[in-house]
Amino acid sequence: MSINIEQQYASFIPPVRTLMGPGPSDVSPTVLNALARPTVGHLDPTFIQLMDETKQLLQYAFQTKNKLTMPISAPGSAGMEACVVNLVEPGETVIVCQNGVFGGRMVENVARCGGIAVVVTAPWGEANSLASIEAALEAHPEAKFVGFVHAETSTGVRNDAQAICALARQFDCMTIVDAVTSLGGIELKVDEWGIDAIYSGSQKCLSCVPGLSPVSFSDAAVAKIQARKSPVQSWFLDMNLIVGYWGDGQGGGKRAYHHTAPVNSLYALHESLRLLHAEGLDNAIARHARMHEKLKAGLAGIGLELLVAKDIRLPQLNTVIIPDGVDDAQVRARLLNEFDLEIGAGLGALAGKVWRIGLMGFAASDKNIDFCVASLKKVLS
Amino acid sequence: MSINIEQQYASFIPPVRTLMGPGPSDVSPTVLNALARPTVGHLDPTFIQLMDETKQLLQYAFQTKNKLTMPISAPGSAGMEACVVNLVEPGETVIVCQNGVFGGRMVENVARCGGIAVVVTAPWGEANSLASIEAALEAHPEAKFVGFVHAETSTGVRNDAQAICALARQFDCMTIVDAVTSLGGIELKVDEWGIDAIYSGSQKCLSCVPGLSPVSFSDAAVAKIQARKSPVQSWFLDMNLIVGYWGDGQGGGKRAYHHTAPVNSLYALHESLRLLHAEGLDNAIARHARMHEKLKAGLAGIGLELLVAKDIRLPQLNTVIIPDGVDDAQVRARLLNEFDLEIGAGLGALAGKVWRIGLMGFAASDKNIDFCVASLKKVLS
Repeated sequence: MSINIEQQYASFIPPVRTLMGPGPSDVSPTVLNALARPTVGHLDPTFIQLMDETKQLLQYAFQTKNKLTMPISAPGSAGMEACVVNLVEPGETVIVCQNGVFGGRMVENVARCGGIAVVVTAPWGEANSLASIEAALEAHPEAKFVGFVHAETSTGVRNDAQAICALARQFDCMTIVDAVTSLGGIELKVDEWGIDAIYSGSQKCLSCVPGLSPVSFSDAAVAKIQARKSPVQSWFLDMNLIVGYWGDGQGGGKRAYHHTAPVNSLYALHESLRLLHAEGLDNAIARHARMHEKLKAGLAGIGLELLVAKDIRLPQLNTVIIPDGVDDAQVRARLLNEFDLEIGAGLGALAGKVWRIGLMGFAASDKNIDFCVASLKKVLS
Repeated sequence: MSINIEQQYASFIPPVRTLMGPGPSDVSPTVLNALARPTVGHLDPTFIQLMDETKQLLQYAFQTKNKLTMPISAPGSAGMEACVVNLVEPGETVIVCQNGVFGGRMVENVARCGGIAVVVTAPWGEANSLASIEAALEAHPEAKFVGFVHAETSTGVRNDAQAICALARQFDCMTIVDAVTSLGGIELKVDEWGIDAIYSGSQKCLSCVPGLSPVSFSDAAVAKIQARKSPVQSWFLDMNLIVGYWGDGQGGGKRAYHHTAPVNSLYALHESLRLLHAEGLDNAIARHARMHEKLKAGLAGIGLELLVAKDIRLPQLNTVIIPDGVDDAQVRARLLNEFDLEIGAGLGALAGKVWRIGLMGFAASDKNIDFCVASLKKVLS
């Protein structure tokens, strides 16, 4: 007995879109080119060298000297889970700041590894207030961690990572930081701000293909992981094992097989980090800020306003208020079908109320903004 | 304070290797070509269509009508973890057959989600005997699952999946099957054999790039997952959530955002499955068998013998006995450096005693075998 499919299948030839949603963002042709280079073995000496360079370039992007800095071989949500399940032991309390979708996801991750999440909320579109976090820390002296989202992709809000980390330290708490959308797009200084565990995604301001999650752990975080009383519940995400595969961050050394790394995706990440380094982190951040100003002016010219207050607004993720009487889904469908332009829908509490226009990495360009504003103008007129 | 790197980084241009180790295997140029196509959004209507076709093609490859059939967005070890943590609840007993590295990894996964692993061992290089599995089932009437590795990549041994599944069913046990190296290389019939949960890898006989893990769950397995008393401990691998993202297997339907799929890697998987379908599964399996015979004859011609007995030998993963007095590491290094040819080292109990020569997917070709035998002959002479 065999199961056959009569249908014939054709190769998938995707349309050429302009990606200005919440991610994936436009991938540079040079990164796509790197992606398609011939696959080598995951323990090939040349690949070990690529891994070492990737770690160095990630340390630069994160602004850290943390030895345990590398990409997890899975998307950003696995990076979040890696940080949580390695650090948090059953019964430990985590203050989680929630002001959008991804803080909520962190709460869920804490609960699933037996941690106790104390949730500090802020309305969608606002930042978590330091006062509310401080109140939670005072009410929960048993708390061991503060977790928060640096750049909330669902709302376009920036939380003050530096201040939250300083506050957490006053209460002897470690910090777990979601930098999925912030890395490479706004200022982020892991060592200077004293971040203990941080995860990001490849497909946002790094402009790499989706599927990898850069992470970094401070020495204190590593010590906490090594001192665990219970094993990390995930074998795949156990940093004690992954460090043996990725090496000690010093270059060279023997590697212990753990899983098979996604070789070609790592070619692409290496190339995208190389481009970031060649541009310079400060220059890339300045470009995001400049492009945001340009987009804001262009949108204002066609009567569109941003949701988020200026001082907490993300340049790389713009939540644009949908004017009364405008059909959200129809506008996005026309942009996609007539202009091959993707912008994002609102999520959760903001569904139907905003569009999300991403200016991430390679997509944060004059060309994209001119095209986006002109296309929106046509569709809205 | 900024952390800078003075070093300049060059794009990584990998050597062009011939990959005849335990995986990744040689990737077809058409698959690499698909990989590098322009990225679209992961909720783009064209991408949803690609997801639907990928599910259909995976059903064909697995020979199943299981609706819950899709790739996990991470390597095979995450696929193993997905099967275990979704199905096994704390306190439940799993009979795990161990005759190499990967059965041992399954034991570890069962323990980390609170399951109780009863281990049935066989020596490295041999298959798990039905008698020993039956004895374990009789001694453990509380067992709910039997887990085993269909094609043990560390030894080149095939376990009799059909017979083990029939035995498990007699004891009302579900089956969890590691098909990382078997899918597309030897006969594997998920529905006919009554397999309940199965995982594979993209980088073996499918000849896709590494990083994805196709999985499939029977209706009974889905019912077990839905009836769980405790939540799945992994948010990222929770099939209850993933099914909302990948859809119900019927095509069409609204998708709920879970994580961001590795868009480009899925282009490649789609293309590699399309090639398998175009060749025909039976033809691909026959090709692996034919190439194995050719390799065996070629190796015999230069005095090399295979470790594993003929009736349990994998055609796609050949463990070759290293002759006395031959320097294992030096031979592999010379093959790599002088011929750009990768073969695998022995693992665990077989380290230093065997080489592992893979004939997987696109790498199972006359050209590769002629080259491998000729190169080995030169290096050994």
